[in-house]
Amino acid sequence: MADKNDGFVTEITPRSEDFSRWYTDVVRRAELADYSPVKGCMVIRPYGYAIWELIQQGLDRRLKATGHVNAYFPLFVPESLLRKEADHVEGFAPQVAWVTQGGEEVLEERLAIRPTSEVIIGTMYAKWIQSWRDLPVLINQWANIVRWEKVTRLFLRTTEFLWQEGHTAHETAEEAQAETLKILALYKEFVETELAMPVIDGRKSESEKFAGASMTYSIEALMGDGRALQAGTSHNLGQNFAKAFGIQFQGRDKSVQHAWTTSWGMTTRLIGGVIMTHGDDGGLVLPPRVAPYQVVIVPIQRGDWQTTVLPSAVRVRDALVAAGVRVYLDDRDTYTSGWKFSEWELRGVPLRLEIGPKDIEKSQVVLARRDTREKLPTPVDGLGARVTALLDEIQQNLYARAREFRESRTTRAESWDEFVRLMEGRPGFVIAGWCGSDACEAEIKSETQATLRNIPFGYEGKGGACVKCGRPAVAEAWFAKAY
Amino acid sequence: MADKNDGFVTEITPRSEDFSRWYTDVVRRAELADYSPVKGCMVIRPYGYAIWELIQQGLDRRLKATGHVNAYFPLFVPESLLRKEADHVEGFAPQVAWVTQGGEEVLEERLAIRPTSEVIIGTMYAKWIQSWRDLPVLINQWANIVRWEKVTRLFLRTTEFLWQEGHTAHETAEEAQAETLKILALYKEFVETELAMPVIDGRKSESEKFAGASMTYSIEALMGDGRALQAGTSHNLGQNFAKAFGIQFQGRDKSVQHAWTTSWGMTTRLIGGVIMTHGDDGGLVLPPRVAPYQVVIVPIQRGDWQTTVLPSAVRVRDALVAAGVRVYLDDRDTYTSGWKFSEWELRGVPLRLEIGPKDIEKSQVVLARRDTREKLPTPVDGLGARVTALLDEIQQNLYARAREFRESRTTRAESWDEFVRLMEGRPGFVIAGWCGSDACEAEIKSETQATLRNIPFGYEGKGGACVKCGRPAVAEAWFAKAY
Repeated sequence: MADKNDGFVTEITPRSEDFSRWYTDVVRRAELADYSPVKGCMVIRPYGYAIWELIQQGLDRRLKATGHVNAYFPLFVPESLLRKEADHVEGFAPQVAWVTQGGEEVLEERLAIRPTSEVIIGTMYAKWIQSWRDLPVLINQWANIVRWEKVTRLFLRTTEFLWQEGHTAHETAEEAQAETLKILALYKEFVETELAMPVIDGRKSESEKFAGASMTYSIEALMGDGRALQAGTSHNLGQNFAKAFGIQFQGRDKSVQHAWTTSWGMTTRLIGGVIMTHGDDGGLVLPPRVAPYQVVIVPIQRGDWQTTVLPSAVRVRDALVAAGVRVYLDDRDTYTSGWKFSEWELRGVPLRLEIGPKDIEKSQVVLARRDTREKLPTPVDGLGARVTALLDEIQQNLYARAREFRESRTTRAESWDEFVRLMEGRPGFVIAGWCGSDACEAEIKSETQATLRNIPFGYEGKGGACVKCGRPAVAEAWFAKAY
Repeated sequence: MADKNDGFVTEITPRSEDFSRWYTDVVRRAELADYSPVKGCMVIRPYGYAIWELIQQGLDRRLKATGHVNAYFPLFVPESLLRKEADHVEGFAPQVAWVTQGGEEVLEERLAIRPTSEVIIGTMYAKWIQSWRDLPVLINQWANIVRWEKVTRLFLRTTEFLWQEGHTAHETAEEAQAETLKILALYKEFVETELAMPVIDGRKSESEKFAGASMTYSIEALMGDGRALQAGTSHNLGQNFAKAFGIQFQGRDKSVQHAWTTSWGMTTRLIGGVIMTHGDDGGLVLPPRVAPYQVVIVPIQRGDWQTTVLPSAVRVRDALVAAGVRVYLDDRDTYTSGWKFSEWELRGVPLRLEIGPKDIEKSQVVLARRDTREKLPTPVDGLGARVTALLDEIQQNLYARAREFRESRTTRAESWDEFVRLMEGRPGFVIAGWCGSDACEAEIKSETQATLRNIPFGYEGKGGACVKCGRPAVAEAWFAKAY
């Protein structure tokens, strides 16, 4: 990730011209993230990190409200522990960064930098859990994760990323399954409400399961270029990890049993999802709920504006702050009003508030919506309530627009020819019958690049014939080219 | 840290008997932290992490209120970059964990796991800062840090720990110095207000400076065993890092200049400081402002308590929550009231609230203060306000008690004999004249184990003669045996 395109980005490529370049230009020009001198690792700049902080707050609040608590486990995983769960190590070993020296000392055993924390957390749960009275354990961790990636992309796939990972242990299989689905529903509600990003929730196929899981569920969003983005996953780990790490407890009937565990996570890639769901040729478009600044105030810089206009702008700022709005008054005199207009448009601020001498005469301001580009002269009187209502409206509109886009890009394929034609044409979700075999799934992928994103709950047991082999379908699955 | 004392702690060693064992027993028995299977690394358990979250919130709020923003920089530092600032690499290289392999690939260049982030952040600042208009840059990061330690201790010194690290860049030397001192003052106010931990603020000697800094300042607290704990540091880095990493800007006069930078940090060791400042033979004593639960409600479990007492306990809980108190209603029927009393005492909850049938008759509850062990029958009417006031009182009392303890353990030594006698006797701070030479400082340390903690601002230019060599003193310094 280092040393390429390292100069300053002055203009952004139009989205309609080259989506991929547009994406990178927006991330860098809006100062969300930057390349670092470390291969594959990004720097999350303050404006991007402020979005992450809002995501953390919204998600953390929901996790705590459902009884989860936070903790912190070591960054390192001794190699011998990583090898205890066979599927898990097979899945993750190729992506592990290894520490082999500490200070002056060459280590006797290599330490993996956590590619995920089931192993280290499972080892601790085996110590902490003795009785059914100790269950459930509902722990979440906010942490950095390292997975050695060959091809990386800012926010979407980086060698190091930030995430939350939940790890729970339960008394029965039913409770573990209920937790897995509860989190999936929580993720869907969070992403749709806060990020205005509609998602499809369902189960992953065997081949796309988390390494070591009994069942993986995901939420899948559709980006502005018609490619899917996996936005979050929730895994039912069955007793696999409990058996590998010895998480046992004495049950109500005094028998010794293995616990049933789950794990689930969402990452900084969500920020990439926000950019690609809502952005346009003008740059970033942020949903108000995760916008670091929901309103930017730009005083019109004519004449002696610092004495004629600025005091009114300050009063407006204070009124909006009092109404609970995140607001920035851009009173810098080193930039023109016009420069500020395009700067804050590019950085996706939901509402721009203009105020000049004529507005002050009329006791009004002019609000400009980033999503629709409408300009709305608005009385200063009652401004706080009006802005709050408008921000809600923008949030709803972004969700509705994204959902409409997804619907316009979701098609049911009745035959293999149609499936291929759809995938070659305008990208999006294609719904098709699937026989349940790995072979058909693999052929579909190699012939069309489309992967089976998931099987939504209502789509199990439907679909007539498999779109690839014609045998009876076990479900209708959602396919797409994906990030 | 693995594999020793790995069983469950059932009782804690009295503090008066063995402070060090008491400390470890409290940390483990109160479920603040635990040993992990990784040498030198700890697990921060939910109860300990909840304290850290309260520390984060209080500190983050103060940093943002003073114009700082958060960001995130990579975990890895390429070896060639680490070597750019000579003093810095000399200071940190012996403590670095090295990644030498990523996935299947042996790395051409080793990657250090950040022992601190001046290097990676300085490299980015060199890209981002072009003009005086870009200054100041006021960035903070919440992150994990790895320093390979030979001897570790839960919270106080661990191979991996959590911290915040601020990194700022300024136009002038004066601004950088002002920032360095502003943060030192912010740290002192934070630690004294939130953790009720009185500290001495001052400058470090040359030998105790941060590797690569022009000047290091610290805040120093006194623990319950009379040993000092460095609770936070703030460094003026001068132009050292700007020159090593090329952080240059065009000044107001168009000349190209190097920026002036600072860095500063506080860590999870603060939790150890809280334990050792306020704890007693009964276990943990938490200051209300950082107590995960400020009040624990224990219903008296007599007769049919779940129908006679519990509904009143629930109402009391709801009233306290409405008053903004962090409260836990311990309604578990698997434990007795007596067990709960000693459990929550050990875990340091500032106020226990008992409620039984007789209290309900009298429309009262009984509050038990953890700090003084007083029992206070209190009317249910107006309980929220009373509890809030009591929590404030407990916070003030803990601070006053710790300050009084420090004062009783701070002595001025007029001669070397007296200095030695004081250090051999009851430990604490010893104030003494110092000539400013590394040699005297080193001799004092080797002969008494006491280190120069810092020179408070009012103590510069005082002190008559050096307590060690008798030459004229440049300052009175504060010495102590330290963690």
